[in-house]
Amino acid sequence: MTRTVIESKSKTVVIGFDEPFCVIGERINPTGRKKLAAELELGDFSTVERDALEQVACGANVLDINSGAVFSNKMAEDPRYADNNFVEPPLMAELVARVQAIVDVPLCIDSSVPDALEKGLEMAEGRPLLNSVTGEEERLERVLPLVKKYNVPVVAISNDDSGISEDPDVRFEVAKKIVQRAADFGIPAHDIVVDPLVMPIGAMATAGQQVFTLVRRLRDELGVNTTCGASNVSFGLPHRHGINAAFLPMAIGAGMTSAIMNPVRVQEMEAIRAANLLMNHDPDGTKWIGFSRIADAVAEGSTFAEAAKASQSAGAGGGRRGGGRRRRG
Amino acid sequence: MTRTVIESKSKTVVIGFDEPFCVIGERINPTGRKKLAAELELGDFSTVERDALEQVACGANVLDINSGAVFSNKMAEDPRYADNNFVEPPLMAELVARVQAIVDVPLCIDSSVPDALEKGLEMAEGRPLLNSVTGEEERLERVLPLVKKYNVPVVAISNDDSGISEDPDVRFEVAKKIVQRAADFGIPAHDIVVDPLVMPIGAMATAGQQVFTLVRRLRDELGVNTTCGASNVSFGLPHRHGINAAFLPMAIGAGMTSAIMNPVRVQEMEAIRAANLLMNHDPDGTKWIGFSRIADAVAEGSTFAEAAKASQSAGAGGGRRGGGRRRRG
Repeated sequence: MTRTVIESKSKTVVIGFDEPFCVIGERINPTGRKKLAAELELGDFSTVERDALEQVACGANVLDINSGAVFSNKMAEDPRYADNNFVEPPLMAELVARVQAIVDVPLCIDSSVPDALEKGLEMAEGRPLLNSVTGEEERLERVLPLVKKYNVPVVAISNDDSGISEDPDVRFEVAKKIVQRAADFGIPAHDIVVDPLVMPIGAMATAGQQVFTLVRRLRDELGVNTTCGASNVSFGLPHRHGINAAFLPMAIGAGMTSAIMNPVRVQEMEAIRAANLLMNHDPDGTKWIGFSRIADAVAEGSTFAEAAKASQSAGAGGGRRGGGRRRRG
Repeated sequence: MTRTVIESKSKTVVIGFDEPFCVIGERINPTGRKKLAAELELGDFSTVERDALEQVACGANVLDINSGAVFSNKMAEDPRYADNNFVEPPLMAELVARVQAIVDVPLCIDSSVPDALEKGLEMAEGRPLLNSVTGEEERLERVLPLVKKYNVPVVAISNDDSGISEDPDVRFEVAKKIVQRAADFGIPAHDIVVDPLVMPIGAMATAGQQVFTLVRRLRDELGVNTTCGASNVSFGLPHRHGINAAFLPMAIGAGMTSAIMNPVRVQEMEAIRAANLLMNHDPDGTKWIGFSRIADAVAEGSTFAEAAKASQSAGAGGGRRGGGRRRRG
């Protein structure tokens, strides 16, 4: 049975075929968030801290920490800031330190800069998830040794030096190659979490079917856990949350075991909680019943984050406590 | 490729693996609705007519017509009314006539009384779906000849003389027996729509997994279409619509091709529209985009039925027009 074990100092999260779906909170990421990047440039971590607390309250099991900031003002003063190899490692160290000081969930260390990945691995307590390796030669050669050295699981994205293929069979072969290369380094398949790449359904009508088929194959043929950037599927379409909220249960039914996503969205989290119940990953329905109280509060006008935090304080089955229940052994 | 063809006088609906999910509206059913039964007893069909129009506007592709009324007042006057064999056949005739006079979708003739089934078959224009046969010997012997005589498809429910088994393998065998018995009558498998029976997840934690597995087996091994009473799965739990709205996409992903359900619920219908899109059964996303306009109106305070009717009148992708688009050939 494939079990990918991720740990913080005090908490263990298992991604696995017989586990509740693992929600990896995506919000701590300055890449698409100019305001956040500007705050970080000024050494202001208040949004990061708020996002950490909110995501955990809303049910994130793991928090992604992405250090991909562009510091435009500093760049004007000092040309070294134009290089992400210069910017990201110290930023990653600071982000990891700040986040693990206030929440106890495991982290997912996310950067395109290998030195930032290594800095994150040095700083993180427990056993973080590394995000990511691809099938690109240079990346394989640089990241897999880190995975081995720090004995951590890694997200493997199914693209290689030829780019992202639209052919799901090619993406499967890239994943297979990464698993094989990892094995050469002594990294077991249960420490590889494959992202089969979700295309926007608005651009590719077969995108959903591709993912469902790929997830099944990855599970049956390679025995690996899977993840994805779930909201990609609805890119460019109206009422995206409705599409995401159907996609997630379908992916879970096909065998997807985690997603990198925004957990501060009640519709998507409701879909995941219900899917966990329907997969028999919520014994006695306790998590669903706890969630339904939060949903009641949302129906009465609370924001999801407020209602989730209130439920957490009341010990009524909200985020952090829920996370704790997911531990096994 | 399995295609179950259902027809009204003017409209064809195909249930099939490559078709959008077929929504069979369940509301015209006095069994659990005392007020409706009392109205029917007085010859008042206004609720039936409103339910027919609303369900079609909201996206029902087929309307179930169930004649299971108890006429308490008439029973007090005339003991013959205590017998559903007396009550249902003329009621079914009237229900079918009233409904097909105002909507053009195909009907699903639903009764536990064989004479009511036959009356419905006589009255219905086109090629209705018959609901239902079970694996019970008496029922097989009485209903399959009607299916053959009227050349209609039939819902086959997976229980037999020993009741409803909690063992999904037994339910599969019952379905297989019905398909074989139907074949003896010259009825092809593509005219059998199997209901594998959905148990409440609150009572049986494996209920969801059972259905997903059964649907796959029924499709792969017997080549039949499937249906279910979708809302059973959430019986007794809070926030039922959230559970139903995750169950439907998961069932669709597993291969379920229709459900008997309440289409006047925006959350469930949103899940189905999104699942159709994700299964590549909504070319170009036109249905989803049409639905999103209705969802906008609901977000602004309309009821789903009002918004769907308004969209229908405006020709903006709502129910009846949508139904027409589902036709093939």
